[in-house]
Amino acid sequence: MEGDLQRAVGVNLRRYRLERGLSQEAFAEFVGVHRTYMGDLERGERNLTLRSVERIADRLGVDPLGLFLIDR
Amino acid sequence: MEGDLQRAVGVNLRRYRLERGLSQEAFAEFVGVHRTYMGDLERGERNLTLRSVERIADRLGVDPLGLFLIDR
Repeated sequence: MEGDLQRAVGVNLRRYRLERGLSQEAFAEFVGVHRTYMGDLERGERNLTLRSVERIADRLGVDPLGLFLIDR
Repeated sequence: MEGDLQRAVGVNLRRYRLERGLSQEAFAEFVGVHRTYMGDLERGERNLTLRSVERIADRLGVDPLGLFLIDR
C-alpha cells in the first residue's frame, strides 16, 4: 500500500532511537537532520527519496533495506 | 553506498521489461511514466521517492522491496 515504506522507515527510526535511549532532539542531531524533520520521519509522514534513506542508514550504521522491514 | 538503491531499481525495471519483451516506450506506457523518465530509471539515474517506487511496483504487480534486491 502506498506509504507503507515511509511508515516502515518511521517505525524503525523510532525503534533505533528508543534502543539508544535518546530524545528525538538528540537522535536528530546524531542522524544529522532537524528535530522537526525527525518527528515527521518517525510518524511516517515524509515521502523520502532513496538517497535520503541511504544517508540516514549510513549515519546509523545499518543496511538501508533494514529500514523498510517491519514485523506486520 | 549512496545511489545503490536507485541503481537496483533500474536493474530490476530493465529485467522486468526484458522478461516481458517490451520496448522502453511500451514498458513506460505500461507503467504509466514518460519514456524518457523510464530510460533514466533503468539507468539508475533517478533519486526516486518511496511513494514513486510503490506506485511503479503496484503497476508491475510486484512487492516494492523486490525492486531493491539484486544479485551482487
